[in-house]
Amino acid sequence: MNYEASIDAALQRLHDEGRYRTFIDIERRRGAYPHAVWRRPDGTERPVTVWCGNDYLGMGQHPVVLAAMHDALDATGAGSGGTRNISGTTVHHKRLEAELADLHRKEAALLFTSAYIANDATLSTLPKLFPGLVIYSDSLNHASMIEGVRRNGGAKRIFRHNDLDHLRELLAAEDPALPKLIAFESVYSMDGDFAPIAAICDLAQEFGALTYLDEVHAVGMYGPRGGGVAERDGLTGRIDIINGTLAKAYGVMGGYIASSAKLCDAIRSYAPGFIFTTSLPPAVAAGAAASVRHLKTDRDLRDRHQTAARTLKMRLKGMGLPLIDHGSHIVPVHVGNPVHCKKLSDLLLDDYGIYVQPINFPTVPRGTERLRFTPSPVHGPLETEKLIRAMDALWSHCALNRAEQSA
Amino acid sequence: MNYEASIDAALQRLHDEGRYRTFIDIERRRGAYPHAVWRRPDGTERPVTVWCGNDYLGMGQHPVVLAAMHDALDATGAGSGGTRNISGTTVHHKRLEAELADLHRKEAALLFTSAYIANDATLSTLPKLFPGLVIYSDSLNHASMIEGVRRNGGAKRIFRHNDLDHLRELLAAEDPALPKLIAFESVYSMDGDFAPIAAICDLAQEFGALTYLDEVHAVGMYGPRGGGVAERDGLTGRIDIINGTLAKAYGVMGGYIASSAKLCDAIRSYAPGFIFTTSLPPAVAAGAAASVRHLKTDRDLRDRHQTAARTLKMRLKGMGLPLIDHGSHIVPVHVGNPVHCKKLSDLLLDDYGIYVQPINFPTVPRGTERLRFTPSPVHGPLETEKLIRAMDALWSHCALNRAEQSA
Ligand SMILES: Cc1ncc(COP(=O)(O)O)c(C=O)c1O
Ligand SMILES: Cc1ncc(COP(=O)(O)O)c(C=O)c1O
Repeated sequence: MNYEASIDAALQRLHDEGRYRTFIDIERRRGAYPHAVWRRPDGTERPVTVWCGNDYLGMGQHPVVLAAMHDALDATGAGSGGTRNISGTTVHHKRLEAELADLHRKEAALLFTSAYIANDATLSTLPKLFPGLVIYSDSLNHASMIEGVRRNGGAKRIFRHNDLDHLRELLAAEDPALPKLIAFESVYSMDGDFAPIAAICDLAQEFGALTYLDEVHAVGMYGPRGGGVAERDGLTGRIDIINGTLAKAYGVMGGYIASSAKLCDAIRSYAPGFIFTTSLPPAVAAGAAASVRHLKTDRDLRDRHQTAARTLKMRLKGMGLPLIDHGSHIVPVHVGNPVHCKKLSDLLLDDYGIYVQPINFPTVPRGTERLRFTPSPVHGPLETEKLIRAMDALWSHCALNRAEQSA
Repeated sequence: MNYEASIDAALQRLHDEGRYRTFIDIERRRGAYPHAVWRRPDGTERPVTVWCGNDYLGMGQHPVVLAAMHDALDATGAGSGGTRNISGTTVHHKRLEAELADLHRKEAALLFTSAYIANDATLSTLPKLFPGLVIYSDSLNHASMIEGVRRNGGAKRIFRHNDLDHLRELLAAEDPALPKLIAFESVYSMDGDFAPIAAICDLAQEFGALTYLDEVHAVGMYGPRGGGVAERDGLTGRIDIINGTLAKAYGVMGGYIASSAKLCDAIRSYAPGFIFTTSLPPAVAAGAAASVRHLKTDRDLRDRHQTAARTLKMRLKGMGLPLIDHGSHIVPVHVGNPVHCKKLSDLLLDDYGIYVQPINFPTVPRGTERLRFTPSPVHGPLETEKLIRAMDALWSHCALNRAEQSA
């Protein structure tokens, strides 16, 4: 058995398809974000502006968050030292869970080390609680949900993205006596489009299904208190399980579900991905709690975020670029080819100090490769102007190349 | 469909079996560990000594670790703001990976948010790299390995715990042309016993299998530089993939694999659990790197750890308690009944301020419930004395109860 040859072959496939990923090594400077320093493989450095981060509101450098983390570090130390069950539950974890339950007006919240594991662990554990459970999963759901649904060993039905007719068809085809769950996202992070939450809740009610909503790209950013799109639309009460992250708009790390006290208790008791891992460092929990608390009242930051997104979209549209615009804070520009997408990204970085990672398969379907910009309240007019000029210059340049290629 | 009734039933099963878990809410005080404060559900507090943490060496409060975390927080902020591929790779992540590769004398290391996800993601991705892969998994492997092996969709063979004859039998029964991998742990955390690493490597060599070793309960603590039991025994070169955590002896959070550069590159490129989640906060990576670096030279701390374990075991044995002793740093006392185990733990906490969590199913097999003590260099003679006296008093008390029960 030649193991090395197999690994070579697996890596070669990525190179052949132009989707071998090279990580860009950056170092943010607290207070200066979105400015950062890019360290090249040869060790040299250059200043860059980050245009693809998911610290959507800049909370990762907010004084309130940093103070909470410093304080908790000083008070309790670095790690939690245990799983939640074995010495790893602290006041900071409990406080954060209380903060999150309140955010979503749910009885309880349950903290995980990430939203990835929250999705994976919860969705793979629900079939243990509801034997025979059929999970209806949107075709564009995030990898973490797909992994969780796949692993459940139970039945799954994939409905076409945001397609209510298809979802209804699949629900109607099933034995009405079986337990059911509809799993979807509020904001799909790669297209920035919204789910028809109310209509999905209607279907869930009609067919007696539970609802599971991933608000990872919405919490902190939508709703009067940052409770997500469900909060904005007054639908929180119709969602049985909300999933969120503390690593994007909240700027720290960790994930959670918010739901009924009993459901959280059951997941807490049955999910290996919750039980058998060290809990978050108390300082991380403290920073996340401070961030959630702060964003419950800082509507201004949310407004400035939306303004930044609208402004950038207007400018890019003005240039005639193929923008994907669904009215959210995410600004994807369609490229449609992995090699081209990587090239554009490389040129932006090398020639303009603009960092936007190419988004290729498997993160998005083949043929839909894109540059995905994430404007934030900390991206000012100057940064936007520079980005627009660079895109303008490069787009003409690349259009030329494309013409050559198709010749 | 009555969802609530299903949840009630699932929770009731746990209560009926006496294995419903109640988390003990504790707050460590930096510099005072293993002393901490227990916050009761009613909000009142009492001082306790933690005897069941996995911060085995007290590194969670080491000044070197805390300074590195404070510095990184000040320099770069709270979260990384992205997945490793999309703006979430920083100098701190790269430095930590270099530190870990060096620790295990491997070409490369790959960082995950936890050792749980490192196991799960790596073991479930290997079959993609080696089509037809048969995984040989020790029957007492940790839940995270079990989940990863299960999820691979590929073939698995469970060999009886540490049973070389059984492993050989299973290897010999298989098509020699198929790729194979033997997955096991160096120190099994609930019994504290060691795997016969050299003999397993011999079998792997004989049958052309790869070796995957979980050193989660050994890194930092064994080997001249803390490289684990494989390092101690001079076997690192014979292990293809080493898994470790940064959350136990290193006192912070995170997990990793160390292996060849190509294998790490392939896992990096193919594992959803690596790709689709926000990377560790830079401050967490910085703290972990400081801890790993420090423990490469602080042999004295390792020696004092082993002494603490030997001393406690000697004392407990002297009292005639049913100790499980395999010569490691873990000190399990067999109880054998979940209700009894919980009762002992409750009495220790309430009456003596000694916190040791009962270990019940599914963490250990039914009938082997236990109290698992984790002495460390920061547990002094006074703490040990108090523990011994409490165990002495309670054990007689409970023996009485057991006699009543069997009457
Ligand atoms: C053997 C073993 N492997 C892996 C893990 C997971 O480590 P982490 O806490 O970093 O997720 C644990 C315990 O938590 C463990 O005991
Ligand atoms: C829709 C969605 N769900 C879940 C996650 C996982 O969140 P986390 O980074 O907290 O693991 C992500 C991205 O990382 C995501 O885009």
